Amino acid sequence: MSESRQANPTAAILIVGDEILSGRTRDANMHYLAGELNRIGIALKEVRIVSDNHRSIMAAVNALRVAFDHVFTSGGIGPTHDDITADAIAAAFDVAIGVREDARALLAAHYDRNGMEFNTARLRMARIPEGAELIDNPISAAPGFTLENVHAMAGVPNIFQAMVASLLPRLTGGRPLLSQTLRIMRGEGTIAGPLGDLAEEFSDLSLGSYPFVMNGVFGTNIVIRGDDAARIDAAMSRLAMLFPETET
Amino acid sequence: MSESRQANPTAAILIVGDEILSGRTRDANMHYLAGELNRIGIALKEVRIVSDNHRSIMAAVNALRVAFDHVFTSGGIGPTHDDITADAIAAAFDVAIGVREDARALLAAHYDRNGMEFNTARLRMARIPEGAELIDNPISAAPGFTLENVHAMAGVPNIFQAMVASLLPRLTGGRPLLSQTLRIMRGEGTIAGPLGDLAEEFSDLSLGSYPFVMNGVFGTNIVIRGDDAARIDAAMSRLAMLFPETET
Repeated sequence: MSESRQANPTAAILIVGDEILSGRTRDANMHYLAGELNRIGIALKEVRIVSDNHRSIMAAVNALRVAFDHVFTSGGIGPTHDDITADAIAAAFDVAIGVREDARALLAAHYDRNGMEFNTARLRMARIPEGAELIDNPISAAPGFTLENVHAMAGVPNIFQAMVASLLPRLTGGRPLLSQTLRIMRGEGTIAGPLGDLAEEFSDLSLGSYPFVMNGVFGTNIVIRGDDAARIDAAMSRLAMLFPETET
Repeated sequence: MSESRQANPTAAILIVGDEILSGRTRDANMHYLAGELNRIGIALKEVRIVSDNHRSIMAAVNALRVAFDHVFTSGGIGPTHDDITADAIAAAFDVAIGVREDARALLAAHYDRNGMEFNTARLRMARIPEGAELIDNPISAAPGFTLENVHAMAGVPNIFQAMVASLLPRLTGGRPLLSQTLRIMRGEGTIAGPLGDLAEEFSDLSLGSYPFVMNGVFGTNIVIRGDDAARIDAAMSRLAMLFPETET
C-alpha cells in the first residue's frame, strides 16, 4: 500500500433512540448507512445510540464531531415534544436556532399541495440551527440539515434513506472498502494460529474472524477487508490454501 | 410517583463490532439485551459500537463504566488475533491479565469431553483480568467475566444469550419498565399539539412519538413508558379520548 495515499474520511452515526434502547424496535438506519458509507469509501468508526435527552444528545454530538470527519444523526427532528435533536445540535455548536424562511417555504408548499394544515407543531420542523445547509426530504418535505460536519436526518427509515440519497453526493469519499469472505467449517480455536500469522503478514488488510454455530456445528467466517483488490485476492488465495475444503 | 423511591440502575452496552460497522451484519445482541434489561428494571441509557481496536475499546469502557451502573460488552473474547476485548478491559482498569486456573480447567474439561485439541489459541480464552468473576458459558465453555461493573460476553448470539442468562440473576434490578402503545392513523404534525400538553401533564412518564409511513399513509405510534402501571393506564385513557378511531 502506497504510504502517500490519503486515508479515507472517518464517520460516526448517532441515533437518538429511546425506542431502540427500550428493546421495542430494532434499528434499521445504522445498518443501511453503514453499507452506503463503506460503498463510497467513508470509514464508519463508531455508532452511538443515546436516549431522547437534551444533554445526552449534546454531549454525544460534541464528542463525535471532534473525533471524526463526519457525524450522521438519525431521529428527533419531527414536530412533537420529544423531537429535540435540532435544539441539542444547536446547543452543541453554541449557535442560535429559529424558523428559517427557506425551510418554512418548503413545508408551506408541501402542506398546501397535500391539503394539510400548516400548524404550529409543523412549523417547528422549519427551525434550523444558524449556519446550517438543508438536506432535501423528497418524501415529507421537512428538511434535515448539515451544520459543519454534523448531518441531521429523520428517524423514519424511508425518509432517512431519502435524505442519505440527497446528502451523500455532496460528500467526498475515498477508495471504497472492499471485502471478501471465506466460510470455514471449523471452530475458531482450530484455525486461530495460522490465521494470526496470515493477519500479521497482511497487516495492511483487516482479517476479521467471526465464529458461528450452525446445527450444532462450529464454523468461522473470515472476512478480509481493505481498499486494494489485488491484496485482498492475494490474502484470500493464501487463506484458501491454508484451509482447504471450505466454501467462499 | 413517590419521591423517595430509588431510581432504577442504569446501563450501557458496548459492542465490539467491525462486522457491524462494515454494514455486513446486523446486530442482534443489543436488541436482545435491551429487552432483558427493561424486563428486570435496569434502564439501558446508551449503546456504543466501536471497531476492533485496543484504544477504541479501552476509551469506551472507561467512559461508560463511570457514567453508568453497568456496562455490558459483546464480542472480542474468542481465540483469534482480533479478539482483544479482555486485554482492552484489563488496560482500562489498569489491572494485569493472564491465564487463570479455573478458566483453564473449564476449557480443558470441555475440549477433553468433545475430543478437541486444547491448543495455544484456545488457551487465550482462559486469560482473565485480575479480580474478575467468571460468567458461565454452557455452550462452548470459554467464560465471560465481570470486572467491577463491566460484564464481558461473547459476540456469537446464542452464546451471548446464554451468558446473559447466567449473569442477570446476579444483578439487582428495579421496577420493570412498562409500556403501552397506541397506533394513531394520523401524521405526527396533526397530533403534536395536544400530545405535547399530555406529555407535560404526565411528566412522570415518558411519551414517545414514532411516526411511520404505511402504504403511503402517515401514522404515529405513541408509546407511553414508566414503572407505574396505573399512571400508564391513566395516560392511555386520556390519549385514547384525545384521538378516537385509533388502534391499540
